[in-house]
Amino acid sequence: MSDRNIVVEKVEQAIGILREKDIDLWLTFVRETDHLRDPSLSLIANPTLQVTWHSAFILTQRGDRVAIVGRFDKENIQLTGAYQEVIGYDQSIRQALVETLKRLDPACIAINYSESDPVADGLTHGMWAQLFRLLDGTPYAARFISAESIISALRGRKSKSEVERVRGAIRETQQIFDEVTRFLRPGLKETEIRDFMHDQLADRNLAGAWEHELCPIVIAHPDTPIGHAAIGNQRTERGHTLNVDFGVSKDGFCSDQQRMWYFLEPGQTRPPAEVQKAFEVVRSAILAASKVLKPGALGWEVDQAARSVITQAGYAEYQHATGHHIGRSAHDGATVLGPRWERYGESINGVVEVGNIFTLELGVQVPKRGYVSLEEDVLVAPTGLEWLSTPQTELICV
Amino acid sequence: MSDRNIVVEKVEQAIGILREKDIDLWLTFVRETDHLRDPSLSLIANPTLQVTWHSAFILTQRGDRVAIVGRFDKENIQLTGAYQEVIGYDQSIRQALVETLKRLDPACIAINYSESDPVADGLTHGMWAQLFRLLDGTPYAARFISAESIISALRGRKSKSEVERVRGAIRETQQIFDEVTRFLRPGLKETEIRDFMHDQLADRNLAGAWEHELCPIVIAHPDTPIGHAAIGNQRTERGHTLNVDFGVSKDGFCSDQQRMWYFLEPGQTRPPAEVQKAFEVVRSAILAASKVLKPGALGWEVDQAARSVITQAGYAEYQHATGHHIGRSAHDGATVLGPRWERYGESINGVVEVGNIFTLELGVQVPKRGYVSLEEDVLVAPTGLEWLSTPQTELICV
Repeated sequence: MSDRNIVVEKVEQAIGILREKDIDLWLTFVRETDHLRDPSLSLIANPTLQVTWHSAFILTQRGDRVAIVGRFDKENIQLTGAYQEVIGYDQSIRQALVETLKRLDPACIAINYSESDPVADGLTHGMWAQLFRLLDGTPYAARFISAESIISALRGRKSKSEVERVRGAIRETQQIFDEVTRFLRPGLKETEIRDFMHDQLADRNLAGAWEHELCPIVIAHPDTPIGHAAIGNQRTERGHTLNVDFGVSKDGFCSDQQRMWYFLEPGQTRPPAEVQKAFEVVRSAILAASKVLKPGALGWEVDQAARSVITQAGYAEYQHATGHHIGRSAHDGATVLGPRWERYGESINGVVEVGNIFTLELGVQVPKRGYVSLEEDVLVAPTGLEWLSTPQTELICV
Repeated sequence: MSDRNIVVEKVEQAIGILREKDIDLWLTFVRETDHLRDPSLSLIANPTLQVTWHSAFILTQRGDRVAIVGRFDKENIQLTGAYQEVIGYDQSIRQALVETLKRLDPACIAINYSESDPVADGLTHGMWAQLFRLLDGTPYAARFISAESIISALRGRKSKSEVERVRGAIRETQQIFDEVTRFLRPGLKETEIRDFMHDQLADRNLAGAWEHELCPIVIAHPDTPIGHAAIGNQRTERGHTLNVDFGVSKDGFCSDQQRMWYFLEPGQTRPPAEVQKAFEVVRSAILAASKVLKPGALGWEVDQAARSVITQAGYAEYQHATGHHIGRSAHDGATVLGPRWERYGESINGVVEVGNIFTLELGVQVPKRGYVSLEEDVLVAPTGLEWLSTPQTELICV
């Protein structure tokens, strides 16, 4: 399915969400998108579209689809095929914007700000102030509400073609992990493994799912810091684990997975008990989360199911959320499957819905052996949970 | 010069600007920068740096350089070498942020919002609300001011190594334009010229200075719409002009130029009078702008100098600004050399400063012949104006 058709599909879905939530009008208000691009723009317009001047993308529950853009951008918006009316302007958006709102006369206007959800928070503070200035003397600025619930639903409920694209990204990811298994030996630097995976991406004409330097994240040694740190010069070593966190972006959609290896010591035929136990606890915790991950569950409830398995097994609590949406981005906003910590704000009170694709990820540290952590990708399908990644059920021994 | 050294150079420059403007503290407050990246972050941190959780980058006129970030991002910030203090946190930024502000006790706090300058408007409305919530019960939220003047100066006043990088991008651009001249013949589709230039970019391992599909913009026919529209299937033809608007991004810095060709008709040895006249008027208008482009000039004054040449010569007024900054981006924010139209807001009241690099660009339509437009890149050097691009003084005849 082409980008253009996905845009038409998502705009129709958005109008359905406005009806469901009884919100009259959704206004996405942007400018100079090459500097700062409201993440919602890619849901309702071509993902490569850039606009320069103040631009308004308006959808209503009655089904109106109106774009007001600088006249140099008019043709590009028409090409998306998603807007029945594209108004071009030269000197100021004010007149067309005010006239359009008067004509549609919405009882409320949803705009893109959110304290908790970064992908629903695409309106800058300066543009927010501009909206008030442009609508001065009209009743409309008093009708603003947050579009968070619309964006969360629209981004989180993957359409059929969006799910297919995520599947495609996961397929490539798993193939690259298989190549890594063939490549591995003791004595490899973390950077060598990263470079090998970068070559794999280049060979397939793909990009990583997040910033190049940190995709993959390679943890080959008990002393390697966990998380988003720059990859270091530790080496794979017999008796140690190897964890790789990696995703690809394909046709605009992402995967995000972790895989585990163990380097057998001379005489070993399987991983030592403490490594095996850690792996099984991690896997159980992910399974526990997957059982709670049903439509209607709250983000923190899913997190708690997994987190309690880890703490009850006597391991230190992991310092991150158990899961997050994936889709157009490896961190696709909206509901987070995380603990009730302030930094997660309201995002962990979000509700799991049919069509959501989440990662489930968590790990523990095994002293002198290394980091043991897994990450799987799952779809909340109408018929129940579907594992999009093939879950890792055993440590891969090298 | 490495990215890391440029960051250190710009952070020092920023502290100098805080002193000059007597602003106690500048706070850049960001999160999930892979979704929405405050453009100022690249000025004061590595351009590829991404942070996940709420992160605060604090500079003071006393010279403090403090970053407060999620602990997984801590090491990456330390690697920039620009921050004397990097504080990591786990559950909430609140405590470290409040304690740091109490310790520094600034009389005013500049934050990144601006109605007029998109690159100074990196704080989202949701993050603005978050700051108020995080600083509730302290006197600090009442001390917020816009950081527009800081960002405008810091981004606009190019350091020596930034100027060198722009020069490098312009050099490549001019070489690619020369290749285009060799490639041209009547009957080429606009898309063929674009594809040829994309191949040139790929051969040089460079990216275009703006979105791939529209970089270059190729206008080969009197009927081709001017501006940012998708490139069409018009063909070069004898008796018509060709205009190409193009820039490259090299080592993180951009060029932005336009070049003109004319396709001689059988028997012609030079362009017809109306095309030649248009070219000379366009060139005169750019020269008129360049004479006004001095430290202290206001953006609209430079625009007016060029625009009046065009209208006095009897041509229709061009529907865009005469110039804009270039640097990390082809539209580098801050002062715009544009007319006093509402869509340009306050940006055209900005002041030209030493170290600024501007484009000067404008054009006219010649009936039945095509679009005639030029764009040059100039540096406001301490010693006077320096043309960074080699100005086009004659139409290139094919």
